[in-house]
Amino acid sequence: MSNRIGKILTLTTFGESHGKAIGGIIDGCPAGIAINIEKVQEELNRRKPGQSSIVTQRKEPDEVEFLSGIFEGKTTGASIGFQIVNTNQRSKDYSHIAETYRPSHADFTYSQKYGNRDYRGGGRTSARETANWVVAGAIAKQIISDIKITAYTSSVGNIHLEKSYKNLDLSLADSNIVRCPDEKIATQMIDKIHQIRKEGDTIGGVVTCVIQNIPVGLGEPIFDKLHARLAHAMLSINAVKGFEYGSGFKGATMKGSEHNDIFNTDGTTQTNFSGGIQGGISNGMDIYFRVAFKPVATIMQSQTTINSKGEQVEMKGKGRHDPCVVPRAVPIVEALTAMVLADFTLLNKVGKI
Amino acid sequence: MSNRIGKILTLTTFGESHGKAIGGIIDGCPAGIAINIEKVQEELNRRKPGQSSIVTQRKEPDEVEFLSGIFEGKTTGASIGFQIVNTNQRSKDYSHIAETYRPSHADFTYSQKYGNRDYRGGGRTSARETANWVVAGAIAKQIISDIKITAYTSSVGNIHLEKSYKNLDLSLADSNIVRCPDEKIATQMIDKIHQIRKEGDTIGGVVTCVIQNIPVGLGEPIFDKLHARLAHAMLSINAVKGFEYGSGFKGATMKGSEHNDIFNTDGTTQTNFSGGIQGGISNGMDIYFRVAFKPVATIMQSQTTINSKGEQVEMKGKGRHDPCVVPRAVPIVEALTAMVLADFTLLNKVGKI
Amino acid sequence: MSNRIGKILTLTTFGESHGKAIGGIIDGCPAGIAINIEKVQEELNRRKPGQSSIVTQRKEPDEVEFLSGIFEGKTTGASIGFQIVNTNQRSKDYSHIAETYRPSHADFTYSQKYGNRDYRGGGRTSARETANWVVAGAIAKQIISDIKITAYTSSVGNIHLEKSYKNLDLSLADSNIVRCPDEKIATQMIDKIHQIRKEGDTIGGVVTCVIQNIPVGLGEPIFDKLHARLAHAMLSINAVKGFEYGSGFKGATMKGSEHNDIFNTDGTTQTNFSGGIQGGISNGMDIYFRVAFKPVATIMQSQTTINSKGEQVEMKGKGRHDPCVVPRAVPIVEALTAMVLADFTLLNKVGKI
Amino acid sequence: MSNRIGKILTLTTFGESHGKAIGGIIDGCPAGIAINIEKVQEELNRRKPGQSSIVTQRKEPDEVEFLSGIFEGKTTGASIGFQIVNTNQRSKDYSHIAETYRPSHADFTYSQKYGNRDYRGGGRTSARETANWVVAGAIAKQIISDIKITAYTSSVGNIHLEKSYKNLDLSLADSNIVRCPDEKIATQMIDKIHQIRKEGDTIGGVVTCVIQNIPVGLGEPIFDKLHARLAHAMLSINAVKGFEYGSGFKGATMKGSEHNDIFNTDGTTQTNFSGGIQGGISNGMDIYFRVAFKPVATIMQSQTTINSKGEQVEMKGKGRHDPCVVPRAVPIVEALTAMVLADFTLLNKVGKI
Repeated sequence: MSNRIGKILTLTTFGESHGKAIGGIIDGCPAGIAINIEKVQEELNRRKPGQSSIVTQRKEPDEVEFLSGIFEGKTTGASIGFQIVNTNQRSKDYSHIAETYRPSHADFTYSQKYGNRDYRGGGRTSARETANWVVAGAIAKQIISDIKITAYTSSVGNIHLEKSYKNLDLSLADSNIVRCPDEKIATQMIDKIHQIRKEGDTIGGVVTCVIQNIPVGLGEPIFDKLHARLAHAMLSINAVKGFEYGSGFKGATMKGSEHNDIFNTDGTTQTNFSGGIQGGISNGMDIYFRVAFKPVATIMQSQTTINSKGEQVEMKGKGRHDPCVVPRAVPIVEALTAMVLADFTLLNKVGKI
Repeated sequence: MSNRIGKILTLTTFGESHGKAIGGIIDGCPAGIAINIEKVQEELNRRKPGQSSIVTQRKEPDEVEFLSGIFEGKTTGASIGFQIVNTNQRSKDYSHIAETYRPSHADFTYSQKYGNRDYRGGGRTSARETANWVVAGAIAKQIISDIKITAYTSSVGNIHLEKSYKNLDLSLADSNIVRCPDEKIATQMIDKIHQIRKEGDTIGGVVTCVIQNIPVGLGEPIFDKLHARLAHAMLSINAVKGFEYGSGFKGATMKGSEHNDIFNTDGTTQTNFSGGIQGGISNGMDIYFRVAFKPVATIMQSQTTINSKGEQVEMKGKGRHDPCVVPRAVPIVEALTAMVLADFTLLNKVGKI
Repeated sequence: MSNRIGKILTLTTFGESHGKAIGGIIDGCPAGIAINIEKVQEELNRRKPGQSSIVTQRKEPDEVEFLSGIFEGKTTGASIGFQIVNTNQRSKDYSHIAETYRPSHADFTYSQKYGNRDYRGGGRTSARETANWVVAGAIAKQIISDIKITAYTSSVGNIHLEKSYKNLDLSLADSNIVRCPDEKIATQMIDKIHQIRKEGDTIGGVVTCVIQNIPVGLGEPIFDKLHARLAHAMLSINAVKGFEYGSGFKGATMKGSEHNDIFNTDGTTQTNFSGGIQGGISNGMDIYFRVAFKPVATIMQSQTTINSKGEQVEMKGKGRHDPCVVPRAVPIVEALTAMVLADFTLLNKVGKI
Repeated sequence: MSNRIGKILTLTTFGESHGKAIGGIIDGCPAGIAINIEKVQEELNRRKPGQSSIVTQRKEPDEVEFLSGIFEGKTTGASIGFQIVNTNQRSKDYSHIAETYRPSHADFTYSQKYGNRDYRGGGRTSARETANWVVAGAIAKQIISDIKITAYTSSVGNIHLEKSYKNLDLSLADSNIVRCPDEKIATQMIDKIHQIRKEGDTIGGVVTCVIQNIPVGLGEPIFDKLHARLAHAMLSINAVKGFEYGSGFKGATMKGSEHNDIFNTDGTTQTNFSGGIQGGISNGMDIYFRVAFKPVATIMQSQTTINSKGEQVEMKGKGRHDPCVVPRAVPIVEALTAMVLADFTLLNKVGKI
C-alpha cells in the first residue's frame, strides 16, 4: 500500500475504523508556524458524523491529539504525530458481512489483492481515514493562511446549483447543513436527502471548490502540474468518480477563439476558462474545480450479492451510514486542497535563485 | 520542476521543442523483457505531426534512438536512455512572440515563476514532450502485453459518439484519421475539424480509453489508487481539463440502488458503473475513462494580448499547429495508461507474501 | 526535516523524548506476514534504558502498542501504526540547559536551522527515537526470517576484540551486558565502562554486524547499492562517525592480487574481502561491517560552554546518561540492518521477469 | 535498479561503457543559475582516462553535450539533459570474458540478479558512469559557488599523508598527477603506483575531502543527516569500502571529555572532532571526511576463476585499466559532495518560515 501524500510537506497515515486509533505523521512542515489547535478541531467537527439530520447518526467525538512537533504553540520543524482515538466501534454491526462481498465496496478487491480482509467497518478502506486528512489540511491551511479555500455542495442528485461561484456569497457555504451557499437550492437538496434516506437509498453529488488570493507560480510541471496534483488528491477521496477544473468537460466543446482568456495589462485575464492554471502553474486568477461523488454503496435495502466462497447471498445494509456523502466531503475537499497548495508553496521557494 | 513520473517504473524526461533533442530515462524496468523497437517507432508514428490533413503540417521524422539498457534484444535491468533528435526547428516562427504572452498559453506563468522564458516553440511547455511519453508507454505496453489498452476520439466539439464502448468495434479506432471507431461519426468529426481549420480556429474534444483483460489487484490505496494515478497522468497531458472514470459525473446524479454493481458468482459484476476499480484496486472488469481536452490556444486569428512590459499588443498565430489535438492525443493517452498499469503491475508483486 | 527511511518498506517516525509519545508508521509491509508481538517487545527490551549497571539508570517501560495494520495475528497490507508512550519524563532535568548550547550536541545547530529548540531531553534529537527503529526492525526481521543478523560490541575505547567474527560464537553476543561474544574481552570492556562512569566521563566504541544466510541478489545499483544503503542507515544513528564493510579502510592498503576473492566452482569465494557485496549486490557470502560510535557528549564533569546569547557559561551534565552507548546500540544496528534488507528483499521481486 | 540520487536536486543517469553514449538528467535545478560549460568540461578532464602515466591509458575525449535546460547561458528551471558519446570502445577487449566471472567484479552478482549480463566493459557496472556524476557535480558547484570543496589523495597503499588538512596548502591538491598536496608524499605515491603497474598489480588508497565556508544549517535529520547522505553518496562510488567523518574510527577510542568541541562565544568551536556536523546539521566549521578505496579488481596477472557454467578457468586481465583509482576518484568525490550540498542548500530554504 501507499499511505503517503505530498512531496516536501507530506502526510503518512494509518488506521482502521474499528482499530484503537487512526492517525498520521505530517513531515516537512517548516519550523515557526503558529498552530491554532482549536481551528484544527473545528475542521474535524465540520466532517464529524452525527452533526445533522442528513448525515450518518453514528456519534464519534473525533478529538485529535497532537503527540509531537509543536512546542510552545509553534511548529519546531520536527514531524508532527497525531492520533484520533476510536471510541464508538460497533464491530458487531459488521459481523454479518465478514464473509460477504458488499456490492460496489472494496471487499472483493482487498480480499483478492491482500489475501485477507479486515471486515470491521471496511477496515482500512473506511472513509474514517479522511479525518486524518482533515487534520493535516487544517495544519496546511495555517501554513498558507493568505490563500482562501472554499468548497461547497453544488449538486445533490439532479438538483444542481447552476450559478457560477462568482454569483454566490461563498461565506454562506457553511450556513446550512448541506453546505450549499444558495439557501433555496440548499433547501431542495436537504429535502432530497431526507427523502432518499427514507427510501433506504443513497444519492451522489458534486462538490465545487474555489481557491482565491493565490499567488502566481504554484505548480511544478511537467509531472507535478498543479491541476494534476489536485486531481490526484481529489480522486483519492472515497467515492469520487470525476474531476474537472476551469472550463472542464464543457471546454472540450468550445473553440479556441471562445476559450482563450485575453489578458488585461496587469496580467489578469478577462475571462477565466483556464481556471487559474496555465501550463500547470497558477496564474493568480481564481482556481475552481468540481469533484463528482457517486452514491454511497451501503443502502438500507435488500441486495443480492456473493460471499467469499462465491455463493449467492442476500444482504441488507445495517449500521449507520450517510445517505449522501457530499455535505461531509466539503471539508475533506478543502483539506486536501490546502495540503496540495502548501506543498507547492514550499516547492516554489526553490524554483529560482 | 518535476520531470519524473512513476514509482517503481519511472520515466524522467528532458527537452525543449527547439533544443537539440528531447529524450528520457526509463528506470526500474525489469530485466529480461524482449523489446520490439519497431513497435515503439509505430507508436511514435501514431503521434507524429504531419500524419494527416487534420493535424499540424509540421514534419518531424520523430525517430527514437535507444542509448542503453537493452542488450541483445532484451532489457538488462539497467536504465533505458533514449532520445529523439529535433530536426525541423523553425525558431524564427517564434521570434515574433519572444516578448509576447500568448493568451491561454504558459508564457506568462513560466516567465513569472522562473524569471525567464524559452520562447522557441514554447520551450519545455511544448507538447513535443509527449513524444517521450509515447516511447516510454510503448516500452510499458511490452511489459504488460496481456493487457489491452484502446483509446479513441469520442467527441470533437459538439459531435459526440454517444455509444458505449461495448457497442463499438474498438479494433477500428485507428482506421480513420480522427481515430473514432464509428465511421459515420468519424466523418462528421473530420469535416468539423476541416471547417474549424479553415476558420483559423481550433476545437476541443474528448478521448475515451478502455482497458481490457486486466487482472484483479492493480492499484495501491490509500494514496495511489489506480484511478487517482490515472487521473494524475491524464491531467499531465497538455490541454486536459477533466477526467472521469466509470459512471463519472453522471454517477453523481444516481442513487445507490441504481449504481451498485451486483456480483455474479464468479466475482464479475452485472453492471460496471464502478469502471473496473473498487477501493482504488482493479476488480477485473473493464476500466474505462474519459479525458477532456480544451481547444488549442494558438489560433490563426488576430488576438489582443500583452507583452512582458505589460503593454497591449496585437498578435496572430504563426507556425504550424493542430486545429484539434484529440486525434494525436489518442496514442498519448494510451502511453500514459500503459505506464501507470505497468508500474502497478510491478508494485503488485510486493503486496503480499 | 526528513523523518522517513526506506523505499518500498518505509518507516516514518515522530516524537520527542519528553513529549507524550514517540511512534511511527511502517508502510509497504506485505500482507500475510505472521507477526509475533512479543518478539518486538523483546527487541525493545534489549535497547531499554536501565537494563544493566553500564547503561543509563533511567527507567522507561518502553512498551510498544500497535494501532493498525495487524489483524488476527497477520499483517493486512495496511500501514502499521505504533506508539511508545513516554512515562518517565523528568523535564526539570533539562531546565538548566534551556538556554545553554551543550558542547558536541545538536543544540546549536537545531537552534540555528529551525529558529527554535525543544530543549527537553534534546527534543527530536534524542536517541529515544531509536526505539522506533527497533520496533520497525523487529517487524522487518519477521519479514526476512531466513536471514540471520548478529551485531556485537567489538571495541570499547582502546579495548578491541581483534578476532574475526568467524572465530567467535556469535550466539554468545547477548550473554553479557556489554554484548561482546568473547567473555574475557567482555569483562575488560565492562570494567572499562564502570571506571569511565566513575570518572564522570564517557567512552566511544565500535559495533560489528554480521549478516548470514543471505540470498544472492539484494541491492539496487547504481544509487541504491546495498552497502551504500547500509552506510546511510548506520550513519543515521546518533553518535556514529564511521562505517566500513568487508576489508574496509584496511582494504585501501592492499594490492589487487591480495584482495581479489577467488571463486570456488559453486560461486562462493575462498576469501571474503568483498564483504559479501559485489557491485552493490549481495553475492551470498556473509556480509560484515563495522560502525564507529563517538563518546556520548553529555559528561558528568564541569564544562565551559555558551548560551543562546553567546555568553560563556559553566555547565555540568545532570540527568541519567549512558557512559558508553555501544551496548544499547547493538540492537539498533541490527534493527536498521533488518529494515534495509527487508526493503531490498521486496525490491528484488521486481528486478527481473 | 535505482539510477537516481538526490531529493530536490536530482540526477538520473543511464549508459554502459560500450553503448552509444552515457548521460543523465539533472532535475530540480533552480532557474537563473549562470552556467559556465567550460568549467564542467574542466572537471570532466580531471577525471578523464589517459591524463597521466599513473592512470589507464585508454583515451576518451569525454566531451559533454548539453541538450536542454540551459538557455542564453542560464538555467531555465527545466530539466537539464546531457550526454557523453562513447568513442573509444574496444568491445573485443572483453570478448574473452563474456562467459567468465572476474574475481571481485560484479559479473557474478549481476548475472544472478538480472539473469543476463552486458559483458562489454562491465556494462552498467563500469566506473565510466562516474563521468555523469562529474557533470552533475560541476553544475552543482555552480549552484553553491560560495562553498569550497577540495578533495585530495591522502593514502596510496601504505603511503599515508599523516598531516591534517589544516597543515596543508589545499590549493596544491591538483598540482601533481596523484593529486596529493604534499609534494614529497606525492612523489612517493607516484613511484608506488608506477611500481605496482609494473608488477601488473593494483593498489588501494584513501581520498580525503574538505568542505570550507559552509553555512550553518545544511542537513535534514532524522533520516537525511548531512553525513549520512555524504556516506551514501561516497559508498555509491565503485570500489569504496569505508567512510568516516570528523574523528571517525579514531573517535571511537576517545573519551567524551577529550572529544567534546568546546564553543567559542561566536558559535565556532575550539576543536572540531565533530567534523563540522552536529545532529546531522552543518555547524559552520569545516567538514572533513575520508573515503577508502579498495584496489582495482582487474589485474594484469593470471588468476583462476570460474565461468557461467561453474567451470574453473584461467584468466588474465586485458584492456587498459587503472593501477590505482584514487587520483581519478578525487574529482568524483568532489562532484558527489557538491551534489549533496546543493541539494541540502535547496532543502534548507523550506526549513523554517
